Amino acid sequence: MSRIAAGIDLGGTNLKVALIDADGGIAAKRSSPFEPASGARATLKDMVRLVDELLAETSRDREALVGAGIGAPGPLDLQAGKIVRSVNLPGWCDVLIRDRLSEALGVPVTLENDGNAAAFGEHWMGGGDNLVLLTLGTGVGAGVIIDGRVLHGHFDNAAELGHMIVAADGPPCTCGQRGCLETFASVSGMAKRIAAAIADGEDSVMDGSAAGDINGVAIVEAARSGDVLCRRIWEEACRYLAIACINIQHIYNPQRILLAGGLSLAGAYLLEPIRSQVQRRRWNMYEDLPEIALSPLGEDAGLVGAGGLAWKTSAAAASAESRP
Amino acid sequence: MSRIAAGIDLGGTNLKVALIDADGGIAAKRSSPFEPASGARATLKDMVRLVDELLAETSRDREALVGAGIGAPGPLDLQAGKIVRSVNLPGWCDVLIRDRLSEALGVPVTLENDGNAAAFGEHWMGGGDNLVLLTLGTGVGAGVIIDGRVLHGHFDNAAELGHMIVAADGPPCTCGQRGCLETFASVSGMAKRIAAAIADGEDSVMDGSAAGDINGVAIVEAARSGDVLCRRIWEEACRYLAIACINIQHIYNPQRILLAGGLSLAGAYLLEPIRSQVQRRRWNMYEDLPEIALSPLGEDAGLVGAGGLAWKTSAAAASAESRP
Repeated sequence: MSRIAAGIDLGGTNLKVALIDADGGIAAKRSSPFEPASGARATLKDMVRLVDELLAETSRDREALVGAGIGAPGPLDLQAGKIVRSVNLPGWCDVLIRDRLSEALGVPVTLENDGNAAAFGEHWMGGGDNLVLLTLGTGVGAGVIIDGRVLHGHFDNAAELGHMIVAADGPPCTCGQRGCLETFASVSGMAKRIAAAIADGEDSVMDGSAAGDINGVAIVEAARSGDVLCRRIWEEACRYLAIACINIQHIYNPQRILLAGGLSLAGAYLLEPIRSQVQRRRWNMYEDLPEIALSPLGEDAGLVGAGGLAWKTSAAAASAESRP
Repeated sequence: MSRIAAGIDLGGTNLKVALIDADGGIAAKRSSPFEPASGARATLKDMVRLVDELLAETSRDREALVGAGIGAPGPLDLQAGKIVRSVNLPGWCDVLIRDRLSEALGVPVTLENDGNAAAFGEHWMGGGDNLVLLTLGTGVGAGVIIDGRVLHGHFDNAAELGHMIVAADGPPCTCGQRGCLETFASVSGMAKRIAAAIADGEDSVMDGSAAGDINGVAIVEAARSGDVLCRRIWEEACRYLAIACINIQHIYNPQRILLAGGLSLAGAYLLEPIRSQVQRRRWNMYEDLPEIALSPLGEDAGLVGAGGLAWKTSAAAASAESRP
C-alpha cells in the first residue's frame, strides 16, 4: 500500500479532492458541489468524507496518508493556518481550517492560497523555478514561484495580480479600486461590461441576459461567432492581459507565465491575441520576455499543487527529525 | 586594523566608493565624476584608486579588505558577473566587471543591480525582510527584497518597476513601450512632458529651457511656487506613483515601500500626495497596505548595500570553508 497525499481545492462552486502520489500523479479524484453558506463545519466533514472515499476506492486506509494540502481562496493567515475571510466564502471568518482538518484526518495539513497551490503544482511538474500562473475565471487569481518557493509577502497576500491597476481611472472593481485587471479580464468583469453596453443600447446576442447569467463559454462563443460587442470585450480582455504579462515580465522576471482557469479553455483564441499584443507593446531593452503558455495541468493544477505541498511538508518534517 | 568592505555605486554621473564596516557604518567615502564614455578600463582604475585612497585615509591597507560590492545599472548577467549593456553606460557591452575588479583588488567582488544594492542596504539596516525601494531620479529604478533575499528573477532582470505600464496607451518611453511609470515619475519623463506642453503653447517658468536642462530640483521648486504646468506634471507623477504603490502592495505585498533618489529630496512634498492618493484609490478587501516612507539611508543606500553584499559574500565563503 503505497503512501499518498491528499490534495484539496476549495473552489467557489466545487470542492475537489484528489489523492496525489509522490511523482505528482493523480491516483483518484472526486468533486462535490460546494455551498459556502453551509458553513465551515459541514465543508470540513465533506473534505474528510471525500478523502476517506478516495482512500477506500484505491484500497488504502488512513495509515497510507502522508498529509493533506488545501488550496483556498484568500486572504489567509498562514502562520495561524486560517482563512481570514473571502469574497468567495461569504460568512467564513477566521476559520482555523488547517488545524481542524489535521485533527479530523490525523495527519499534518498545509494551507495555501488557491492560486499559489496551482502555481506550485506547475513548478513541481517541471514548470521551472520562476513562474507566474494566472487563473482566469469568475475573478482573476494568481500564484507566483520565485527560486522554487511560493511568494507570500509580509502580509501573506502577495500575487493578488487580479487587482493590479492597469487603467488609472477604469471601471470600478468589487474590491473598491478602479481599473483592476479583474474588471477587464475576468468572467464577472466582462459580463458586467457587456450588460452595461447592452443597457446603453448596444446590440448583442447577449441581449436579455442579466450580467450574472453571462458565463465565460458564452462570451467566447459569441465573440468567435462575430458578435461585435462580445468580440470587443474579449479583445480588451486580451489587451489588458498582454499589459499584465509585460508588467509581470518587469516585476518578477519569470521564465514563464501560465494561463489557467475557465477562460483558458478558449486555448489559442485566448493565447494568440495576448502574444501578439505583447509583441506589439513590449520593450526593446533586453531579451527577457517570459514564455506565455496555457497551464499544462489545467483544471488539475490546484489539486496537484495542494498534494505536492503536503509531500513537501512531509519531507521537511522527515528531514528535521533525521537532523542530529 | 579592523576589517572593512568596499561599497561601490556606479551612477550615471558619479562613481561613489565607501568603506563600510561590519555594522553598516560608513568609515569613509569619496566620489569622483564618472564619464561612461571614458570606458570600463579607466573606470575600473578609478574604482581601485578610490578604494586605495580610502584605505590610506583610514590607516588601512588592502589586507583589511574583506571584499567589495558594486551596484551597477542593469541589465546584468549575475552568473558571469558582467554588465550586459545599459542605457546609462553607452558603449559598455559585456563588461566582466566583477572578475576584473576582483583581480585588481585581490578580494572577492559581488555585483548587483544598483536598485537592488540600495534595497539590500535598507534591509541590512533594519528595513525588514520584505521591502521595495524605488529610486526616483533621471529614471525610475527599483530593488526588491523578499524574505531577506534580493529578487533577481529568471533573467536576472526583475524589479524593473520603472517600466511597469501604468497607462495603457500613455506617452512613449525610451524603452519602446508606452505609459511606463518612468514616463510620468522620472525627472527625464517629467522634463519631456513639460517641454512638450510648452511647445504646445502652455505658459510656464520653464519656458526657454530644453528638456535636457530641466532638472528635478527646478521642477519641484516651480511646482511649489505655483507654476501651473509644473504643478500638474508633479501631481501626475505622484498619482502614478500612488498607483504603482498599490500595485506593489498586491504584487509583492511588502512590509514597506521606500522612496529614494533625487526626487525623494522633495520630502513631504512627494510623500504626502502619494499617501493621500493611495488612501483614495486603495482596496477595502484586506488591511495589507505597506508603509510608504522616504528611504532612511537616502543617497547612501546604494553604497551601504554594496558594502553589505560584500560582507554577506565574505560570511558565506567563511561558512562554506568551515563546513565539514
